[in-house]
This record gives sequence, structure tokens and C-alpha cells, in this order.
Amino acid sequence: MSPDFFASRWVQRPAHVTDADGLAGGFRAGAAAAGIKGHGAIDLGLLVCDSADAVSAARYTRSGVLAAPVLVCRDETTPNAMRAVVANSGNANAATGPAGMAAARAMQQMTAQAIGAEPGCVAVASTGVIGVPLVLDGFQAGVAAATAALQRGGDEAFNEAIMTTDAFAKRASLDVQLPSGMVRVSAQAKGAGMIEPAFATMLCFVQTDAALEPETAELLLSVCVKRSFDRISVDGQLSTNDTVILMCSGASGVHVTAESEDELRLGEALDALLRMLAIMIIRDGEGSKRVGRIVVRGGAGEVVERCARAIANSPLVKTALHGADPNWGRIAQAVGAALHGTAPLMLDIAIEGIAVCAGGVAVPYDLDALNAAAAGLEIEYEVALGPVSDPAHAFETEVLFSDLGHEYVTINAEYTT
Amino acid sequence: MSPDFFASRWVQRPAHVTDADGLAGGFRAGAAAAGIKGHGAIDLGLLVCDSADAVSAARYTRSGVLAAPVLVCRDETTPNAMRAVVANSGNANAATGPAGMAAARAMQQMTAQAIGAEPGCVAVASTGVIGVPLVLDGFQAGVAAATAALQRGGDEAFNEAIMTTDAFAKRASLDVQLPSGMVRVSAQAKGAGMIEPAFATMLCFVQTDAALEPETAELLLSVCVKRSFDRISVDGQLSTNDTVILMCSGASGVHVTAESEDELRLGEALDALLRMLAIMIIRDGEGSKRVGRIVVRGGAGEVVERCARAIANSPLVKTALHGADPNWGRIAQAVGAALHGTAPLMLDIAIEGIAVCAGGVAVPYDLDALNAAAAGLEIEYEVALGPVSDPAHAFETEVLFSDLGHEYVTINAEYTT
Repeated sequence: MSPDFFASRWVQRPAHVTDADGLAGGFRAGAAAAGIKGHGAIDLGLLVCDSADAVSAARYTRSGVLAAPVLVCRDETTPNAMRAVVANSGNANAATGPAGMAAARAMQQMTAQAIGAEPGCVAVASTGVIGVPLVLDGFQAGVAAATAALQRGGDEAFNEAIMTTDAFAKRASLDVQLPSGMVRVSAQAKGAGMIEPAFATMLCFVQTDAALEPETAELLLSVCVKRSFDRISVDGQLSTNDTVILMCSGASGVHVTAESEDELRLGEALDALLRMLAIMIIRDGEGSKRVGRIVVRGGAGEVVERCARAIANSPLVKTALHGADPNWGRIAQAVGAALHGTAPLMLDIAIEGIAVCAGGVAVPYDLDALNAAAAGLEIEYEVALGPVSDPAHAFETEVLFSDLGHEYVTINAEYTT
Repeated sequence: MSPDFFASRWVQRPAHVTDADGLAGGFRAGAAAAGIKGHGAIDLGLLVCDSADAVSAARYTRSGVLAAPVLVCRDETTPNAMRAVVANSGNANAATGPAGMAAARAMQQMTAQAIGAEPGCVAVASTGVIGVPLVLDGFQAGVAAATAALQRGGDEAFNEAIMTTDAFAKRASLDVQLPSGMVRVSAQAKGAGMIEPAFATMLCFVQTDAALEPETAELLLSVCVKRSFDRISVDGQLSTNDTVILMCSGASGVHVTAESEDELRLGEALDALLRMLAIMIIRDGEGSKRVGRIVVRGGAGEVVERCARAIANSPLVKTALHGADPNWGRIAQAVGAALHGTAPLMLDIAIEGIAVCAGGVAVPYDLDALNAAAAGLEIEYEVALGPVSDPAHAFETEVLFSDLGHEYVTINAEYTT
């Protein structure tokens, strides 16, 4: 674990969080080749909690086209008692119909048998190409090999097994000092494209050896996902397969009770962890060079949300971000398009704290200073929609987003992903 | 005018339409340098109807950020009696506040004086960078030069004066045989990026020497814009400046009365003309190589619209189109994302008539044939959202769209436009 995991101006390392190595207590992971990617590539990741009393919480994509593994997780597992994850890369098992459902169930059952658990405790996740039948000829041998490889330091191998177009791994292991004792939180994520949230668009598995009630696990995951994977966009696209699963082994012996100081501190650590992983996903962003953060304030909740998404997903804003061009007219354009028929908008726009537009009108600014500010790797944009007299129009939101560069086109025009 | 103006499988040349040269009778156009682009570039286009009884109709962008020239056209002209257009490239005069309004009015007034018309009869249009003050130091001389250059064959120069990132000119001159006589329709359009309609996203000026009542002009323009500029997308972005103006001189002496066969035939010609210009805009599309047409059927009107837009604006679909990759999983993804929480969707998907997904499930297809079909320059996608039992869910719509390639990134990351 590199010491600079929290390497973004937009995430503070909580004072009670230190870097660690390896999975949270009570968890082991492994990986193997199951013949899905072919050429002997590692494409199967297995993550197991040794406790049969594990507590879990999960969030899935809201797409109208749900992949088979999402349907199996959602409908055929015990929601708060998942204790294992089997994940493959190379095939999303989406738009694959009854045969895809049978394949997802077969993955679940073969894994349950290999690790000696009930099938309903095994979550299944897939990522890769959509609409291609998932062939499991090598799965039985693969899951046996992954089971044999299970170890507490297996998070790195597991993380690599679930990567597709990811340029780098996204994982962390953190020790969290709670009032009641030290616990560990570990997480592994993947995601680089087909990323826009509602909530997320990626796979992320989070483990802790703290002991949580199911309601506490649900609450913490729900709040932290809303502030992380829910707030990012690579390309405005929503995957058929997004899955986030939190599993709690209780192996540390530290019980985190509802509404305690422990819960607050663990929540802070989880929040920072998931926000940082979310930023790593947009930083990967299939060839992304710069990442942006747009903050929109001064409207109804739905309005600030719509504007922030429109800016974050505007190919004109994203190419300008890529080119370090502080072309704020494109931000005005995106807001105008998002808010049809509301002219005149009294927009204020600032880039890196430099005001460029006030009350809908360009204001003089130091172009050299603005150009220099736009050349950084993390660029912050602020938009205020107008003077706020009504508290109902005082909402604020953010979206963190990738730029759009040649590498995104190369990756997505030249490969079937 | 090249004989293959109607060079798209998606537009049929009406049998009563033949190619012509020069503007419709009663119109003259000219161009000059007004110092807005600098370096002596031609950046001012002037279009004048010689009849003081001209009848006009117009459509403007619905953006919440309206450029000053749009506000002047909308609020400070006689809507059905515009007889001249002055247009500049190099500066959009948007987000420029009171000074921008004053500049747009000054353009209108100086032009009115130069051609001897009332200011309220002169439409103003601008295209170029947003948020930069429009300096008119060279305008007076420019409009005088353009007035001196006015001629019936001036449509080419006018068209060139309004181009920005356009790679080629988009104009036509057509003779239209109506039952009551021959009329001419001419049109000049610009647009390559910041193009998504609601309605349009570009400038287009249309002239005819037919005599139309204001109501007929309104009706024909409204219907034809809905079927053309309203149905295209380069990049899902809505400009602050979109303007379409139809002007009718009556110089042919052919009166087109409401609900007549003349109106029907003129409407057919206008429809084909505007659809073809719209396709030329997406074909330009800032580096576009291939264009797509998505047809979505089998849902409520709002639902098919949302799906078609989601597909047309998906960077994953657009990069696949660019790469001639028949990656239909990305179409399924886009539909799923557009229709949150409606799983399971019983999608049918076909590419170039080849079924690839039925009832939400991949179907076997000849990959070689599909790859060959996806390598054309105009690719047609069809999506059916499910079996239709209720007529309220039997709507169908189309969107025509550009691909997303390296050239778009180069143009938009490296230049302030």
C-alpha cells in the first residue's frame, strides 16, 4: 500500500486512519484463470469471509438491462449474510437470457461447493463484454485453484483478476482507530469506462473486521456510496453490472453499535476510502489525463443535479478539460442546454476560484493565471445559478468527472469491450 | 450545385425537385471581412430580400443561455416580416451581457442603414466563441462592402462567411415544380459541433421566391425543422445561438395557399432539403467518419425519445460507430441507463437489419456479415422496447448522429471554439 493513497485535494485522510497491508481480519482472497479471457489470463477472483456469521450490505446498478449476476445477487442471495464473492472479468454475462442466468447460478453453486458455504451466501459479479454467452468450461478448475490460493494477502491478486480496461489497480487497506479498538477496512475496486452512477458503475468490494449489525452496514454503505460512486462520471454511461458489496467479519472483536462514536469514526474512514476509490476510477477513466470537480449551487435539488451532470457529461467541457483550456463558454452552454427555456440565466462561473462569468456576463480575468490554473491535474469548476432568496433553491451538489481524450476514443473505437 | 446533393439513403429527392444555381428569386447575398475573426478573414455574411413585403418565419434555440443576437431576433424584429439577415462568425456574442445586446442592436442598425430597411426587418445571427466581447470596429466598413457585393449568386460567399469549424459548405439551390408554377428554394447552413437539437443547433437560412402567407411559412418551417434539425445530434450539446430563418420573396409570382397541392409539394421539397442539410451537419460533425440513424419503437412518446437520445449521445455507441464495431451491448447499456429500474427489458436490437438481440437476449448472427454491414458510412440501428399491446406504447422516433473520433477530440481539446 503506497503511503499516498489519499492523493487528491478532494479527500482528506481522517486523522484516525493509517495505511495497512492485506485484507481485513477474517477475510482471504485468491485468483485463478478460468478460461473466460483466454490465453491463461487471470480472470476469476474469489473473496471469502471465514466467519459463517458475516454481515453484508450491497448496492446494484439501476439499469433497465440488468446482467445475470446482478439478478442472482439481488434475488438469490441472503442480502445481509453474504460471506463470499466470486467475480470474473472478460464477460459481463449481460443480455444473455436464461442461459446467462443458469451460468451465474452455476458460478454461485460451484463456488459455494468449493468453499463449503451455502449458495445463498455467495455473491456473483461479472465484468466485460455484453451479449456474449459465458462459457464455464474452465470454471470448476479455476475456482478450485482460487480456493487453494486463498490468503489474507490475496487482495492484490483478486483486484487484478477483476480488471478489464483499467490502467491501474484500485485498492486500499486501512487501519482505523475507533474508540472501542482498532479495526481494518480493505477494499478492491475496478472501473474505467461505462461509468456513470445512479449509483455507480463499477465493482467494489469492501471488507471490515469490525462487527456491525445489518442495519448499520446498510446505513454506512448507503451513505458512503451516495457520496462517492454516485458522484462520479467517466462517460455518462451506466453499466449493466455495477455492484458494491460490504462484508463485515467481526474478527476484530470490536462491535460498532448504531449511533455510536465508533460508527461515526468508521463512517468517516469508509467515506474517505470510497471517495478516494471513486476518484481513482475517474482518474483512470480510459485514458483520462485530468479530472474535474463541478460544484453547482443555487437551485432546487433536481436542478443543481441536472446541471452538474450536464456539465460533467458534456463532451465539449470534457475535451476542454483534457486540453487544459479554460473555455467556460462551454460550461454556460451545458447549463443553458440543461435548463431549457429559462433564459436569461444569471450564471456565476469560476474556474479554480477565478471568476470568469457573473450574472450571466463575462467578467475580466487574468487569462495567464486562468490558463495556468487550468493546466493542473485536478480542476475545480463552480457554478451558481443565480441569487438565492428562497431556501428551496439553495441546494448544492458536486460531480467528479474524467476528461475526454484520444485514449478514450482509441480504447472504445478499436476494441470490443 | 453538385447533382448528388441528396446523397443519403435517408433522404429521397422528390420527383418534382431539380438542382439549380444561385439564390431564390428576389434574394441577393454578399460577404466581407469585418475584423471579427481577424487576419482579413471573411466573417460577415449579408442576405437581403429585395421585396419590402417579404414573409418570414423563424426558430431559435431553447437554451437557458441565449446569445444576444437570438434575443434581438426574438424580441426586436417583426417576426413574420424579416427581409434581411446579417450574420458573423468568429464570435457568438453570448454571455456578453448588456454590451453584447448593444453590439447585436448595432449590427442590426448598421445593416438596416446600409441596405435601406427598417431595423425590425433585419435578423442578426452570430457563431463562434462564447463569452468574449464582440468588437465592431470593422463592422461598418464590412457591411458596406457586403452590401456592395450583393448578388443573386452570392450564396456561396455568404455560406463561407458563416462557417466556423465546418469542414465543408452546406447549401443548396433547388427548383421545385409546383402545380401552379416553378419556384426556387435556396438554403445555406453551418454547423459541425455543439449540435443537439431542441430544436436545432446551427444556423440555417432558407429562401424561396414562392409567395406564402405568414401562417403557411410558420407551418412549413415548423414541421420541417421538427423532422430535420430536431432529429440530429453531433455531441448532445445545445448551442446558445441556433437560428433557422425562412424568408419568402414572392418574386416567382406563384402563390402557395394553405392546404393546397402547392403547399404539399413545397413542403416535400423543404422537408427533403432540410433533412439533407441536417445530415450534412452530422456528417461534418467535427471529424465524423460515419453517421448513424437510430430508430426506437414500442414505447410511449417520451420513452422512445429518451432512448433514442441516450443511444445517439452515448460516447460508447459513438466510438463503436467510428470504429465500425457492431458492439450492440453498448446500445443495450444505453437503453438500460435511459430506463432506470425497468428491468427486465425485452429489447430487440438490429444493426443494418441483422437481428442481434431479441427479447433482451443475444441471438446467433453471422459476425462476418455484421462486421461488413457496420463498415458502411451510414449505419442504421433499430431498437424495439418490447411487445406492444397498448397503442399508447406504439410510438416510434429516430435520431441521426455523428460518430466520435480522434478528430473531434483534436478539434475540441486543442482550440478555443
